[in-house]
Order: sequence, then C-alpha cells, then structure tokens
Amino acid sequence: MITMRKILAIDAGGTSTRAVVLDLSGRCLGYGRAGSGNPTAAGIEGAVAELGRAAQRAVTTAASTTDHGSFALIALAGTVSPPLLRQLSARFAELGFDGQPIVEPDLLGTYYSGTFAQQGYALIAGTGAVAGRITGGRLGLARGGTGWLLGDAGSGFWIGHQVVRAVVASLDGLGPDTVLTQLVLDSLDIEAQDGGIRGRPHALVKLMEETYALRPVDLARFAPLAFAAPEDPIAHAIVTSAAAALADLLAATRAPDIVGPVVLGGSVLAAGLRVAPSIFAEPLKRAGGGVELIAVPDGVVGAAVLGLRHAGVDIDGEIFSRIRDGVARLHTEASQEEPAVG
Amino acid sequence: MITMRKILAIDAGGTSTRAVVLDLSGRCLGYGRAGSGNPTAAGIEGAVAELGRAAQRAVTTAASTTDHGSFALIALAGTVSPPLLRQLSARFAELGFDGQPIVEPDLLGTYYSGTFAQQGYALIAGTGAVAGRITGGRLGLARGGTGWLLGDAGSGFWIGHQVVRAVVASLDGLGPDTVLTQLVLDSLDIEAQDGGIRGRPHALVKLMEETYALRPVDLARFAPLAFAAPEDPIAHAIVTSAAAALADLLAATRAPDIVGPVVLGGSVLAAGLRVAPSIFAEPLKRAGGGVELIAVPDGVVGAAVLGLRHAGVDIDGEIFSRIRDGVARLHTEASQEEPAVG
Repeated sequence: MITMRKILAIDAGGTSTRAVVLDLSGRCLGYGRAGSGNPTAAGIEGAVAELGRAAQRAVTTAASTTDHGSFALIALAGTVSPPLLRQLSARFAELGFDGQPIVEPDLLGTYYSGTFAQQGYALIAGTGAVAGRITGGRLGLARGGTGWLLGDAGSGFWIGHQVVRAVVASLDGLGPDTVLTQLVLDSLDIEAQDGGIRGRPHALVKLMEETYALRPVDLARFAPLAFAAPEDPIAHAIVTSAAAALADLLAATRAPDIVGPVVLGGSVLAAGLRVAPSIFAEPLKRAGGGVELIAVPDGVVGAAVLGLRHAGVDIDGEIFSRIRDGVARLHTEASQEEPAVG
Repeated sequence: MITMRKILAIDAGGTSTRAVVLDLSGRCLGYGRAGSGNPTAAGIEGAVAELGRAAQRAVTTAASTTDHGSFALIALAGTVSPPLLRQLSARFAELGFDGQPIVEPDLLGTYYSGTFAQQGYALIAGTGAVAGRITGGRLGLARGGTGWLLGDAGSGFWIGHQVVRAVVASLDGLGPDTVLTQLVLDSLDIEAQDGGIRGRPHALVKLMEETYALRPVDLARFAPLAFAAPEDPIAHAIVTSAAAALADLLAATRAPDIVGPVVLGGSVLAAGLRVAPSIFAEPLKRAGGGVELIAVPDGVVGAAVLGLRHAGVDIDGEIFSRIRDGVARLHTEASQEEPAVG
C-alpha cells in the first residue's frame, strides 16, 4: 500500500517536541525537533511556536520527496483548549496539513513507540508521572497524571521536590547531613557563608529565595542530583521511594485478563533504568506482571503509528519496524546537523 | 510609672489582625480587629489596608481616654519591604503614631503573649509552622518557617495538602478509601457522578480543576477536615504525623542550658490541643522538656509587651497581667459589638 499521501506526527513533551513526516507505508520522510510543545508547560503561544517549529523542520527535510500533505496528529499530556487547536490548525495549514489536528494522549504515543500490540500498559515518568492500560488499541484506563500538587509520586518534580526539602531540612537543623546540599547549592551558584539572616543560615535564605522564584514544576531540575549521589543515604532513599511509587502506579493499571507489553517512557525512567537498574528494573518488572519492559526515548514513533491508524492503515511488524528504524535514522542525522534540544 | 504616652501594638496574622492601644503602665485603652495584615498573604496594599483598619478601630475605642500617641509596633511573620514600611508610616501618622513602625518576628509576639520570662521557646503552627528559642528577650534561633514548598511539615498547609492528596489518591485508585473524600468533595460542592473524563472519574477531574485554581497555601482550608474525622485511619495518620513533625520542630530549637516556658500559637495547635489532646499534648510536652505548655489565641498581648519594652518599661508580673486581662476584656467587648473576623 504505497501512496504519496503523507502524515505529520508529533510527540509534544514538557521539555522538547519531536515531529516526523511519513507516508502511509510507514516510510519516514522528514524529522524535526523543537522546545516544549506542552501548553501547560509553555503556554499556548509557546506551544504553538514550538510545535510549529518542529513541524516546519520535519516538513523542510521531507519536502523533496513528497507532493501533498494529509493531516497532523499530536500526542500530548493533558487536554487541549479550543484556542490552541485553532492556532495549530492555522499553523499546520501553512505547512500543507489541512484540518484540525488529531490529539491523542501521551500515554498512547509512548505505548506505540515500543510495540504495535493492541493491548498492554504504558508508564511515563518525566516531570509528571502517569500510567495507562491499553485495550483494543485505545487508552482504557489512566492512573496518576494528577500533577505536582495533588499526585505524581515518583515523578521528576516529586524527586526534585524531595531533594530540595531534604536540603532545606538539613540546613535548617531538622534533617541529617546529605551530599545533596552541596550539589543543590552548587547548581544554584550559592556559596556557603558564615553568619545568618534573622536566625537562619545564609545559604538557607538564599536557597529559599531561589526556589520560591521558580515555578513549582521547575523543581524537577533537581531530580538528576538524586541519581548523581548513589552512596548518599538520603538520595538513595528518595530514588528507592520513587521507584516504589512508580511501580505502584503501574500496578494500579493492571487487569489480570489484559496481558501485553509494558512500555516505559520519560526522563526519570530512562535515568532510573540506566543509573539505578537494580532499584528500578525489578519493582517495575514485578508490577508489570513479569513481561519484558520496553523503554522508549520518546513518543514520536507512537504518534506516527497512531497517525497511520487514523488513516486506516493496519500496523504490522513490518510497518512498525519501518517507522521505528526510519525515525531512528532521521533522529541520528538531525543530531549530527543541529544542536540537540532535549 | 504612669504616663499618658500611648503605644499602638499590632499582631498581624495570615488570616486576621489584632491591634491594641495601651499606655506605658500596661493599661489597655482600645482594641480592634481586621483581616490579614501579612503582606505575603494579602499583598502590600491589602496588608496596609487591614493593618490600618485594625489600628483605626483600636484608636477609635481609645480616643476619649488618652491625649497623644507615641509609636507603633507590629509582630509579623517574614520580612517587611521598604514600600510597606513607608505606607504604614503614613497610615499610622494619620492616627497619631509618628515615625516608622517597629517590626518584630511573630514568634516573639506569640511568646510574650504567654509569658514575660526572658528565655524560653515558642512554636506557631497556622498556615505555616515555625519555632524559636528566646534568650535575653530576643529571638536567638529560628527553625522552620521555610514555607509550603520547602518545609512547614505539620502546618495547616501541610495537613490540608495531605488531606487533598489522600483524596486524590483514593479517587485515582492509588490509595485506600477515606471519609475525607466525601468531606473534601462536599466542601467544594462537587457531586459524585457516574462516568469519567479521559479515563478518570468525574469527581477527580472536578477536584483537580478546583484545587489547581487555588493558591497552594490555600490548601490549608482543608486542614480542619483532618480533625473532623478522628475515626478515619487516613485522617488519624495525617494528624498524628503533623503532631510528630511539630514536636520535632520544637525539639530542634531546644538547648539544654536554656530552660523556660513553651508558648504555643496558631490555628493548628489550637485545634490539635482542643480536638486531639491525646495526640498533640504529650509529644509537644516531651519536645519542650516537660515544662508546662502555654497556649495563646494570638500574638497581640506579646506585641504590647514588646512595645512597652521598646519604650523602656520593665515588664513584671503585674504589668503582664494587666495587659493580658485588658486585652481579654476588650476582645470580649469587641466580639459582642462587631462580627468576628477570624
């Protein structure tokens, strides 16, 4: 089934966005990356700009090999407002993709980046944490994803928040010493000084000023420090608690009669499986029912799979491999040509 | 030492403000209350308006009995910006109190509302949580008070946050059932409905909308629900953890050679000692070194004590009792005349 119709598939993340242009045979024609395309993280204007930038890059690299576009599909966390959809429609029409873009949950983008099976499970732990059960090719059930204030235990925000709270408690004489203190203060260019302000150590007052000036979700920037100090008991406890919380989140999506692959996405799971495999892999494998865990770098392959399915294409192993290998090839080429964005 | 000079003493809290006008013998001449006088909670404009309103009321009731004013003293959490001080100076000058108001930590206002001893300890748990060691009549050491994002375990925010997170976890299938769910949903007029939105229960989606629309510190409004459900294991665990965290905070201020009274203030400690004395009183008494705990309703008596001390008056038991009894009498009269404000 070879046709010249082409699809624009986008994975819009909280820190970066990836777009691919492909035809209905799964052949990847163009690829582009940009910054955050998530309206919650970047605002509507920012999200439209970055989604448009990634799409423009993908269309530009694809230009010589195709004739006309078909439609766009975006995999995204959260919901999409009508104003955002209107602005995206206008932007994508300029690039040759008419009509309102189709929006799918980020969980499906992640899931179909790792498998073409019609049932299974996906777990994402980036800035937030969310898990889902996929049945009949749809998202049947979602757990988590309730955000930094209300949930998301084990997420990047949660880990970064625990890191900073542990450092504050230590500086405030309420918690034990931890090497995280030096790591956090260094990351903010705060120097330890003698003396205090209103009965508090100087470094604590500075740390309070710096962190309250951030948006709360930006505390996720401190999450990598927990993985950077494996010998520290506090850091170890934070990482272990995060892995347990994420395993609980995945387990809460399980149904005994739904057996399928478990696909893992997001920066926390990537770091956990790479740096602390003994802490992350076993609880997650147990929570997933013992099947093999498939870690994916992002959700753009899944966005492409979802796009083809919306166009009526049955995805088999051959097409799935073609998409996955094509995206990997274009990603490598793009990384050699342009600076990475996330 | 009787003189007609009079002092304006104000206790500026996060939800309400109290002002008293008194002479240098400790005789209380006027009293007034208003809304939040804390600039962090109310903004500079709002804080000036409410501090001015409380002061105006106190001056009005005092008017017939005194001739001219001296200075103003405010007990307040956090720091005070130069613009706020300028605006307050102008406002208080209109009321006959010239010069820049003196600002003292809320911990000292609370402490001297319960005792006139020159050394001891104070613990406040309202929206936030902070503890201090008082030596030589000054705040020698402060612990906690690092705010909702970084610390304040056991505070009203912390309890309310735990309550809402427990409800979200329960609605999301990640935590056990709790009667807190119905209490929280009722308090927000959210009705349980069948069906869901994007794989989530309707009530959970509504709760997320309502709570993310609040300022984070406003989650303190859910704290009373934890005290309202003593039989619920989740509520009981939250209240018990709060009491333990507050006891740890108090204990962290202790020095073996500094023996003195322990004064407790703030809505969480008031609720804890009244509704859950078995949970709160013992850990706090132990943390305080076994001395008697003195609970105070607010910090206005202490603000008056600090004001007299700034005027060079030695506070003895007679003057302290006169201030305390005078404030109590005027407070009762004001409560009969005007609606309570907090």
